Formats: sequence, C-alpha cells, structure tokens
Amino acid sequence: MTTLPRIGIAGITGRLGSLCAEEVGVSLAGGLARHSDDGRNITTNPADLAKICDVVIDVSHASTVQAHAKAFAAAGCPWVLGTTGLNSEDQAAVDEAAKHIPVLQAANFSPALTLFLELAKQLGAGLPGYDAEIVEVHHRQKVDAPSGTALAIGRAVAEGRNVALEDVMRLDQNGARPDGTIGFASLRGGQIVGEHDLMFMAADEQITLSHRALDRRVFARGAVMAARWLAQQPPGLYGMADVFRRTV
Amino acid sequence: MTTLPRIGIAGITGRLGSLCAEEVGVSLAGGLARHSDDGRNITTNPADLAKICDVVIDVSHASTVQAHAKAFAAAGCPWVLGTTGLNSEDQAAVDEAAKHIPVLQAANFSPALTLFLELAKQLGAGLPGYDAEIVEVHHRQKVDAPSGTALAIGRAVAEGRNVALEDVMRLDQNGARPDGTIGFASLRGGQIVGEHDLMFMAADEQITLSHRALDRRVFARGAVMAARWLAQQPPGLYGMADVFRRTV
Amino acid sequence: MTTLPRIGIAGITGRLGSLCAEEVGVSLAGGLARHSDDGRNITTNPADLAKICDVVIDVSHASTVQAHAKAFAAAGCPWVLGTTGLNSEDQAAVDEAAKHIPVLQAANFSPALTLFLELAKQLGAGLPGYDAEIVEVHHRQKVDAPSGTALAIGRAVAEGRNVALEDVMRLDQNGARPDGTIGFASLRGGQIVGEHDLMFMAADEQITLSHRALDRRVFARGAVMAARWLAQQPPGLYGMADVFRRTV
Amino acid sequence: MTTLPRIGIAGITGRLGSLCAEEVGVSLAGGLARHSDDGRNITTNPADLAKICDVVIDVSHASTVQAHAKAFAAAGCPWVLGTTGLNSEDQAAVDEAAKHIPVLQAANFSPALTLFLELAKQLGAGLPGYDAEIVEVHHRQKVDAPSGTALAIGRAVAEGRNVALEDVMRLDQNGARPDGTIGFASLRGGQIVGEHDLMFMAADEQITLSHRALDRRVFARGAVMAARWLAQQPPGLYGMADVFRRTV
Repeated sequence: MTTLPRIGIAGITGRLGSLCAEEVGVSLAGGLARHSDDGRNITTNPADLAKICDVVIDVSHASTVQAHAKAFAAAGCPWVLGTTGLNSEDQAAVDEAAKHIPVLQAANFSPALTLFLELAKQLGAGLPGYDAEIVEVHHRQKVDAPSGTALAIGRAVAEGRNVALEDVMRLDQNGARPDGTIGFASLRGGQIVGEHDLMFMAADEQITLSHRALDRRVFARGAVMAARWLAQQPPGLYGMADVFRRTV
Repeated sequence: MTTLPRIGIAGITGRLGSLCAEEVGVSLAGGLARHSDDGRNITTNPADLAKICDVVIDVSHASTVQAHAKAFAAAGCPWVLGTTGLNSEDQAAVDEAAKHIPVLQAANFSPALTLFLELAKQLGAGLPGYDAEIVEVHHRQKVDAPSGTALAIGRAVAEGRNVALEDVMRLDQNGARPDGTIGFASLRGGQIVGEHDLMFMAADEQITLSHRALDRRVFARGAVMAARWLAQQPPGLYGMADVFRRTV
Repeated sequence: MTTLPRIGIAGITGRLGSLCAEEVGVSLAGGLARHSDDGRNITTNPADLAKICDVVIDVSHASTVQAHAKAFAAAGCPWVLGTTGLNSEDQAAVDEAAKHIPVLQAANFSPALTLFLELAKQLGAGLPGYDAEIVEVHHRQKVDAPSGTALAIGRAVAEGRNVALEDVMRLDQNGARPDGTIGFASLRGGQIVGEHDLMFMAADEQITLSHRALDRRVFARGAVMAARWLAQQPPGLYGMADVFRRTV
Repeated sequence: MTTLPRIGIAGITGRLGSLCAEEVGVSLAGGLARHSDDGRNITTNPADLAKICDVVIDVSHASTVQAHAKAFAAAGCPWVLGTTGLNSEDQAAVDEAAKHIPVLQAANFSPALTLFLELAKQLGAGLPGYDAEIVEVHHRQKVDAPSGTALAIGRAVAEGRNVALEDVMRLDQNGARPDGTIGFASLRGGQIVGEHDLMFMAADEQITLSHRALDRRVFARGAVMAARWLAQQPPGLYGMADVFRRTV
C-alpha cells in the first residue's frame, strides 16, 4: 500500500478550501488562514504549514502569492496554486519558486474542463474554416460575463489557430460574423454551477464540446488529485493538463 | 375523396413563394408577381388571381397589403397573409378585410414553432418564479439579433406572465439577473436555418423547449396547410394557432 | 397576511418525507411513521395526525393507502397522495375518499414536469405525422428502464394522439421506425437525479421538450405547493396539473 | 499558383460518388463504373482510370477492392479508399498495395468526425472513472443500430482505456451500470443525416462531445480534401486523422 502525501491547505476557511479539506480526509495535515485555530491545526504562517505537509493546495488570495512563493520554495514544499488575479510581480515570484520546487498553477481544477481546454485547442487547429461560438450558463447572481472559463476556452481555440483571442473575439451579437471570429454568449438562471459549450459550425456539419459542473466539489476533487500527483514531481512549473497527459 | 382547394400565390417568384408553389403541386391555380408570365399563369393583378383560386397565400411585400386587402375582400377570396413589416394603416386594411373574408395572418408558418409559441405562453404562466432565457442560432450572414422569432417567443412568455416584454427583456449579458427578467442570446455560424431554445431555470429544476428548422420548406408546408384549412372557415381574423387548436 | 395551512406528513421518516418536512418549515404540524416519536410529534395513527393539521402530504407506502383513505375521509382532512404502486382496491379507496375530501393524486410533484406532461399531450395532438422519441438519463444505480416518468410522457403523447401507448411504444432500437411509433432510450451515468427529453421530428423541423431535475428537493417543493393549494379546494379528485391550470 | 491534382472517382455513379464529382469540379479526370460512358469520361477498367489521374477516390464496393488494389498499385496511383465491409483477403490486398502507393483508408470522411474519434480516445484515457454513454440519431428508415459510427466512437473510447469494446459495451438498457461500461442508445426520426453524442459522467461533472452531419456533402468534401493531401504523400497506409494531424 502506498502512503498518501500529507496535504496542507492555504485558504482552508474559504468555500473551496473547506471543500478541499473534506476531500483530503485523513491525510489532511493542517491549514493556513488569517486566524489560527489550535483545534483544527490552522496556522497563520506559511513556513509552519510547509513543515508539517508534503504538498500545499493554495486557494487563498492573490495578495499572499509572493510570501507563499518564498516560504514554500525555502521549505522545498510542492505548491498547487489555484489563486487567480495575479499581477506581473506575483507571477515572477511563482516562476522563481518553480526553479526550486514543483508548482502546479491552474485557474480551474476540474478534470474534464482541463481536458476540454486541450481538446478546444485541437478543434481550433483542426477545423480552421469553421465558425466558433462559446456559450456559458451560470447562476443568476453572477455579475461578470463572459465567465473566466469561457475566456480560457476562447484563448485555447485562438491558440490552436495561431491568433490572439483579442483580435478575433466578438461580444456584440449584432451583425454578420466575419471569418475567423469567436463569438461569446452568456446565459444566467437558477443556481447553475457552470456550463460551457464550444460549437464549431460549417455549412454541412457541426461539432460541440459541452461541460457541466454539477457540484463545486469537482474543483476540490481535482485540486487534491493535482496535489497527490505534484508531490511526486521534480521542480518546475506545471499545469492541470500535465496531470492528465501522462495517462494518455 | 375530397377535392383540394385551388391555391394562388402572391409573391410566387420570391424564395418562399417558389417553395410554396412546389409544395402546392397540382392544385396550384396561378400566381401574382410584378411581371406577368403566361406560361406559368402569373398575373400582376390581384383581382385576376382571386378569380381563379379558392384561397391565396400571400408572401409578397408589405407595400401590397392594402391593395390585396381590397381585392381579396371584394372577390370573397380567403387570404393567408405571411407578409411582415406592416404599418398601422396596412393592419387596419387587414382588419377590415377580415370582416368579409377569412384572413390568416402569421409571421411564421412552421407547425412546430406555432405550437412552441403556445407552449411558451403556458410555461411563462405556469412557472412564475423561474428565470427565463432565450437562445437563437442562425447562419453567419444574419445581421439582426435577436431574431424576430426569438422576440416573438419572448412576447409569448411575457404574455403568460401578464407583463410587457419591453419591461423585462434583457439584451446586455453583464450583471446579475433581477427577478422576472427574460434574457436573450444570439449565436451565428455555418448555414443554420434557425434554432431557438427557451429555458426556464429554478435552483432545483429546469425545463427547455427547443426548435430547429432544418429546411426552409417547413415554412411552405405550413403555409399550404394553413391555406387548405382557411378555405373552409367563415370570415374572421385567424392565426396559425387556430389551425392546430382544432386538433387538440 | 394569510395564515399558511398546518401540514402533516405521512411517511415523514423517509427520504422524500424528510425533505417535505424541511420545506414545510414552521407550519409543520406533525408526522406519521411506523414508530412514534414524542419529540418530533410523530404518531403511528392517521386519525391522530388528521386531528392536528389542515392537510396531509402522504409519501408513505402503497400498503397504507386503504387505511389512510378511511381515516382522512372520516376526519375531513385534505389528502395529497404521492404513493405509487396502488392496486385496484387501493385506487377504489382513493376514489371513494375523493367524494368526501379533496384528494390530489400525483406520481411526481415537480412543477415543471407537471407542465411537461400537459405540453407533451398538446405536442402529440398538434404534430400528428412527426416521429416521437423519448430519452431519459438517470444515475448509474437505477435498475429499471425506461423510467416511470418516461412512460408517463409516452402516455401523454399517446393520449394526445388518441392511441394506447402499448400499441405504439418501441423499446427495441433496431429496425426502421413505422409511422406513429414512440421510441424510448435510456442512459445511465454519474448521479443524475433525472433528465427527460421528448423529441418530435419531421424531415424539415424538430421540436424538443427537455426537463432536468437538479435536486430532489424539487419534489418536496411541489408537494408542499400542492398541499397549500389543496387545503382551499372542495372535495374531488385532483392532479398536479390542476394546481397550475388556475394560473394560466 | 499550385495545380490541383487530377482526381478520378471509382463508383462515380453512386450517391456519394456523384457528390464527390460535384465537389471535385474542374479537376475531375474521370470515373469508374459498371457501365462506361464516353460523354462523362467513365470507364469500366481501373487501369484506364489510373492512367488519367493523380489520385483516385474509391467509393465503389467491397467486391472490387482486390482488383483495384492491384491496378492502382501497378499504376503507382494514390488511392483514397472509402469502401466498407472488407473481408480479411480484401484487407490483405489493401495492406500489400500500401507498400507501393499511398493509401488512405477511412469509413467516414467528415473532418469533424475524424477529430471526434481522436478526442474520444483522449477522453477515454483522461477520464478513467467516468461513465461513458453514446447516443446516435438517424433518419427513420435506418435499420441497423447502433450506427457504424457509434461503434467506431465506442472503439475509440475503449482504445483510450486499453480495453476491448466487446468486453465493455452495453446495448441492453435495463439494470444498473457496472464500472467501465460503455452504453449505447439509438434514436430514429425524420430525415436526420446523422447525430452522435458521447457523454462522460461523474457525480460532480459531465463532458459531452456532439457531432451533427447536416448535409451528406460533408463526406464528399472530406474525401476530396483527403485526396488532395494523399497525392503528396509517400507510400504507406494512412487514415483520415493523418490529414488533420499535420495541422495541429
């Protein structure tokens, strides 16, 4: 029997952090938060967390990235980083840490969405003359549109086509579509966790890739899968696709 | 064996008019167009057309509505009117004609879309707290958005909810959705004839009504079905729903 | 302010009964189960339950139907009956009770599915030459196929067409489809609560009605909605459609 | 300006052969059929066809495969082979020819379906614990189920999972689904050219890949694309995926 790596969670008191803690189960080593809690083994110091675990899942906040990068690199502790909204200095700190420890950086930990982005790139490359459209559906409270994941899908298609998304994206729904445009549409309703469709249309055929997140636990499940994988890797900067690539 | 009514087509040289002529087959009496054609029995005078047929399908142009209204009413000839873009004087002429002859006025002759609009009204009425969203997909050359049919679906939902569509419709895809909003999204690609989805979403369930027009012939088929039905009716103003209501 | 009717729940310790109790909230009067429980106001005697509430939601078991019918009719207590698997004597007892008290009998309390069945009948009636197919998706543990709801949808379409489902249903997926057939297909996977699609296909158009139950609470929500409505009705046998019909 | 290769079509009088001829346009060199036709440059001898073209698209019949293999190999003429139903001797003849000429063998020439099969393999490999289900929809006259393409999709998923489709496929829709099963469902209606959905379901997320053929011309378009590509290749046995792989 292999022993599971002990996992620490930065941002353990947040919504996703709590779900990650549940998912980790008995191999949970402890957490990092703004307020320590002896009963739940929560510290406010990243160096302390690094000491007691084999890998950290970090779903805290962009403001902590530079301090975490230094602490985890110094401790030689593998770092799964799910925080978004990093500025260029934050990112430089991540890149520097990846010279010393394995770092897996991802905006979304869903296994199927990770594959979705890979496949989107291949579809973009393989179907050059087809019209591409992206539709996303989220709960009625969501304020921003299109969703960050919809934009990531658009970037994957654009990358497959060797163009910049900014040059081909289309948010305005009026007017005929010029060649090579990638259109976006956003629906809102109910308590939908997140649905994304990517359509490629020619006059004689269509292909659609669709993803539905049914439960936010999928993100926790993916983060824990990533952590267990990352604990075995050499230093370097990884993405979620690397977790799955080995298996294909 | 019942004899099929002889059908005349106003606008017979247009795209939909041509498809209607094919669909009518041997019971085609003749047509009306800007240029007469002896070989194909096409006249430029509505009174002449009315003389030789039992019912007219009119898919010509809004500019002809007032003249046709007078001619067909005078001749006692049932009138299936599919022309859109009528102004208030045109509409008054139609209403006046309907006192003397049976008139069926419709923007869309698809049998399933006709039912769709009926069901949309019932869903709007029966699911008052659910978030409603309408998505339409059309070929890449289509310039206007949302489609006229998408707006008709929105009006049906609003009617079921006893509100005006103008007060609840939402074209902007940013921001949270207030209660009772009806959202619209438009996709464009390939040579799609027309697809419309109407979704109602609550936290615990969703219901969606979807229509796909696969071939423009569906509009001709529905117009001819309407004409055969209208030829048997007393004077009055009818809609496509009346053609199907009898059968339920 | 109107006072909500006090609701009793027969089968309160079962999965759906528990969800109903949560949904009822403060107007919960008590419950009926095989074992009484003073703390939670649970009795084993239907007459005792009837005394303390204005309406009963019964999601217990077919074996209790005849006893409940007598007790609730004697007490003049409105009865929402969600139990399935009734034999003809059970049903006779229900019919007899409905002469004295309002009884609402339903196999499924989802508001949108209730409307779905109504619309399915209208589509069956309004699109007589279209091919009808029903697809259902449920969690991987589900043993029976097609689902009871899929069969209810098929019966609604058949009723709209004035035929018996048994004469037109098609479970075998091989071979060309004769006219008027209603085909069924079942998918299984994940933890899907329940999805049902009803498709009508002609050569030139298609219309599809789709329902997704996202959370089992929808059935509790609908049962409570039905109970509040039923408490105001005169004696008679009602269905879920009656709850919504008034609003259209 | 590059000169397009001259294309010959074996089976030019069949439905797909006719569409290929239209698609080829002015670079059509001639055809092969059971009856020659001087006016349309149709011969009954494969060696004669090979003389006048740079590549042959063969959509004739399995019974001709061995003769064609010898004739095209002897003439050094690249061979796009779309005939299905080959026995082991036919296949051996194809393999032998591929030592001397470039041969592209495919059951389906749709560009998007070719990518679909590639992506299906990746999804099978990348989502090992997810339940896989395949749904196909075809016109009401189709007799066999599941479709050949549905089976090819199933084989791609099984290949990604390192199992044989025969060991995991499930046609019976009753009973709970054991782990690793690949389920199939078939719908029939209208004049649907062909729709295929591949779903992967976990408790917390789903991913679906969907293809719709809207017009049979897509198969001719893909065959001609394949022929133009094959004319530039060295001897060997190729598949449709090779045509697209270069571009990714």
